[in-house]
Amino acid sequence: MTDCNKDCAASECAMELYERLTAQGDRVRTLKTDKAAKNEIDEAVKLLLQLKETYKKVTGQDYKSGSPPSEVTSTSGNGPTATTEDDDVVDPWTVATSNAKGIDYDKLIVRFGSSKIDQELIDRIERVTGQRPHHFLRRGIFFSHRDMHQILDAYENKKSFYLYTGRGPSSESMHVGHLIPFIFTKWLQEVFDVPLVIQLTDDEKYLWKDLKIEECYRFAIENCKDIIACGFDVNKTFIFSDLEYMGESPGFYKNVVKIQKHVTFNQVKGIFGFTDSDCIGKISFPAIQAAPSFSSSFPQIFNGRKDIQSLIPCAIDQDPYFRMTRDVAPRIGHSKPALFHSTFFPALQGAQTKMSASDPNSSIFLTDTAKQIKNKINKHAFSGGKDTIEEHRKFGGNTDVDVSFMYLTFFLEDDEKLEQIRKDYSSGALLTGELKKYLIDILQPLIAAHQERRKQVLTCAAPAAKPDRKKSSFDGLTSVLPYRNCWIH
Amino acid sequence: MTDCNKDCAASECAMELYERLTAQGDRVRTLKTDKAAKNEIDEAVKLLLQLKETYKKVTGQDYKSGSPPSEVTSTSGNGPTATTEDDDVVDPWTVATSNAKGIDYDKLIVRFGSSKIDQELIDRIERVTGQRPHHFLRRGIFFSHRDMHQILDAYENKKSFYLYTGRGPSSESMHVGHLIPFIFTKWLQEVFDVPLVIQLTDDEKYLWKDLKIEECYRFAIENCKDIIACGFDVNKTFIFSDLEYMGESPGFYKNVVKIQKHVTFNQVKGIFGFTDSDCIGKISFPAIQAAPSFSSSFPQIFNGRKDIQSLIPCAIDQDPYFRMTRDVAPRIGHSKPALFHSTFFPALQGAQTKMSASDPNSSIFLTDTAKQIKNKINKHAFSGGKDTIEEHRKFGGNTDVDVSFMYLTFFLEDDEKLEQIRKDYSSGALLTGELKKYLIDILQPLIAAHQERRKQVLTCAAPAAKPDRKKSSFDGLTSVLPYRNCWIH
Repeated sequence: MTDCNKDCAASECAMELYERLTAQGDRVRTLKTDKAAKNEIDEAVKLLLQLKETYKKVTGQDYKSGSPPSEVTSTSGNGPTATTEDDDVVDPWTVATSNAKGIDYDKLIVRFGSSKIDQELIDRIERVTGQRPHHFLRRGIFFSHRDMHQILDAYENKKSFYLYTGRGPSSESMHVGHLIPFIFTKWLQEVFDVPLVIQLTDDEKYLWKDLKIEECYRFAIENCKDIIACGFDVNKTFIFSDLEYMGESPGFYKNVVKIQKHVTFNQVKGIFGFTDSDCIGKISFPAIQAAPSFSSSFPQIFNGRKDIQSLIPCAIDQDPYFRMTRDVAPRIGHSKPALFHSTFFPALQGAQTKMSASDPNSSIFLTDTAKQIKNKINKHAFSGGKDTIEEHRKFGGNTDVDVSFMYLTFFLEDDEKLEQIRKDYSSGALLTGELKKYLIDILQPLIAAHQERRKQVLTCAAPAAKPDRKKSSFDGLTSVLPYRNCWIH
Repeated sequence: MTDCNKDCAASECAMELYERLTAQGDRVRTLKTDKAAKNEIDEAVKLLLQLKETYKKVTGQDYKSGSPPSEVTSTSGNGPTATTEDDDVVDPWTVATSNAKGIDYDKLIVRFGSSKIDQELIDRIERVTGQRPHHFLRRGIFFSHRDMHQILDAYENKKSFYLYTGRGPSSESMHVGHLIPFIFTKWLQEVFDVPLVIQLTDDEKYLWKDLKIEECYRFAIENCKDIIACGFDVNKTFIFSDLEYMGESPGFYKNVVKIQKHVTFNQVKGIFGFTDSDCIGKISFPAIQAAPSFSSSFPQIFNGRKDIQSLIPCAIDQDPYFRMTRDVAPRIGHSKPALFHSTFFPALQGAQTKMSASDPNSSIFLTDTAKQIKNKINKHAFSGGKDTIEEHRKFGGNTDVDVSFMYLTFFLEDDEKLEQIRKDYSSGALLTGELKKYLIDILQPLIAAHQERRKQVLTCAAPAAKPDRKKSSFDGLTSVLPYRNCWIH
């Protein structure tokens, strides 16, 4: 598949859209044939409709299966770029764009009303922590924030905060993209030396997916092991399943009810697009994702203190939850959570969508073998290279759309090496196979090491027992041993 | 706004009425939210009902919020009697009628689709339990049921059930009307020898009223003492506050989420009249009142068994919650709760409305002194007597609207005595003052005895501690010591 560069003719763009539309149509049919979960089908249909709309804007014609665009009747001089602005769809359930480079994040900052992570902020984090900023910051992978200067002001005045992040356990296996917020959160915990809470929204997955409650809980346990394997500070980290913790903490439920009292259906309809046909569980769920933003949801950690601010590292698609939370916070006597937003980790097939845990070839899973990793990257990673070696040597590759290069920006820590690869690939000196080999050589040991750590995670002898929360003093707060006593020994 | 003259075009009339009705509906809601004086609310409700009646006359249709009159199908020749049928408003937040005798309960049975408690059922209960039926059954105070024959069939086959009732703790003090379901539930527990769970919906009161969460919880504790003073079986009764128990029982929360997944906003809108402006807490609350209908919400009592049916004695206005519950139950693998519905306990001022905890003169409170009881009954109890003694002696009094007589049907257990009073009052032999004295002589010792038992209720030394659930074997199930270790010693 060719990529859609600015200088490509509109007709090429149309052809590419046509191919994507055909593929998406096939996908919808397959999902329906396989009797996939309703919301999975709905999402696929939604993307299909968006693609059709974009196709019509670009070509001036309706998409017809089996009839490729013969001619571009592009509407009164508007090139494809004119439509880019409204193409991106970003909410907690759908991330879609027709741009091969991915979502336009600068526009998202404007739309969401957050702040760009600029050099000034990055420099300040370096000054305050005395540590070199993580490459996710240096490379704009975490690109947007809310109230980070407030967090740093307070931190400089010896006022602590805590970290909150989470995961929706929709299946047993996680992919490398799921690691991004955890890798960054681990770094934040190390450099700021603060407590961390990690929410596993197994209740959300039960509400949204065609799964049994026991399955969602089991996925939470399995995902928890992967999260533990990331290596957070054992004395400062609390990982919990909603289905379990709601029934263990009156403080948590009280905050949920407080939030639920201060948000109307009109508001969640506006923020999340809920309709009258949605179940009341979905409608009230945002309060459950909001509640861990408030320290009083964890009296066992914060000794009942209400005044400790949270900092939430998450992918930007989760921001709607926290815009709502920030709106409610002052009305129930809590401080607004601060946020760090990341870009999305691209699927192997390209940056148009997030990875999907349901398509094994769209991602590198944390359970993949070295051989699977190699094959997937070689076979499925979308390439920015040219069709022939001769052309590639002559014109060079395009790192803006090359998925292997994008993955290197996430996982190759050495800035100089990355820059060298970028130059060599762009000039044509480096071939696609060589670029892919760099990535394979990084991901194989990284995932093998993760698997090794995961093996060492202890599981409780008595799964139904309550966690033994051994308290340890920390920075005027107390922290607890993590969720269910599972930890690396 | 002009008024609706006879000669205005019928369609204009209908639209104007529709708008006035909508405005008046809003006004009633505002008055309730603002806790306006009871008579102010009553007047507003009265006007609302009158407008509805007129609306129906003009349009031939029932008024429906959000559905303006499309077409006028009026109506010439229809008298007002045609509309009386739908005057009664009965839902968990409003009970209103323009009939001095109170709600038409036979019509309610038809509207709600429940079954009348007939002599056959009463006789069967007597046969099965070997006990004389409670006077609430004999006198039609509990008048409607769902699936009681199923409960009795199972009971005769040695299959047990449990009782579930509740209270919304909207203030510190309860009135005698609040005792009705508890008195009947106590009788049921005694004659069937079954476990009982009592839910205090402090979360509901927080969501609906302008109260702090701590106040609602405190009301729950205070109301709990009154409930305990009713004298339930200490080894078979579990009383809980939602705000507390939700955070103590993963089994309870799991059922809440299961119910929330299977009820849409459209459904709760239809059942409870919620709107888009309601907070998401109200919208999802019905699942919380539904959850105790399922035995798996109490694994500590029922050893995790899912198959024990519940029987819910409650006032008929709570039925919408349980219609919803019965609809959901089979879809989540539970049996439908059975129900016993009671009529409403009338306010001192008359049977048009329920008593109000916010108007001290509308009710006899459980905290009232003997003197207050006497004064309230003599001064405020609506009389069915005639204006002068002469007229009364000549024409007799009307027991159908006399509130003191109604109260006697609740609290005077002796059937013969009650019948004698009815005859004597109707004939004029008994004067209003004499009738009132019968009631005073019954209520004064009844309430004094309640106060004495309430004083003996123990309160925990450490209110924040979890209840010490001492298990005791019961009928193949296990039961627990009640809520917070509070009990009569």
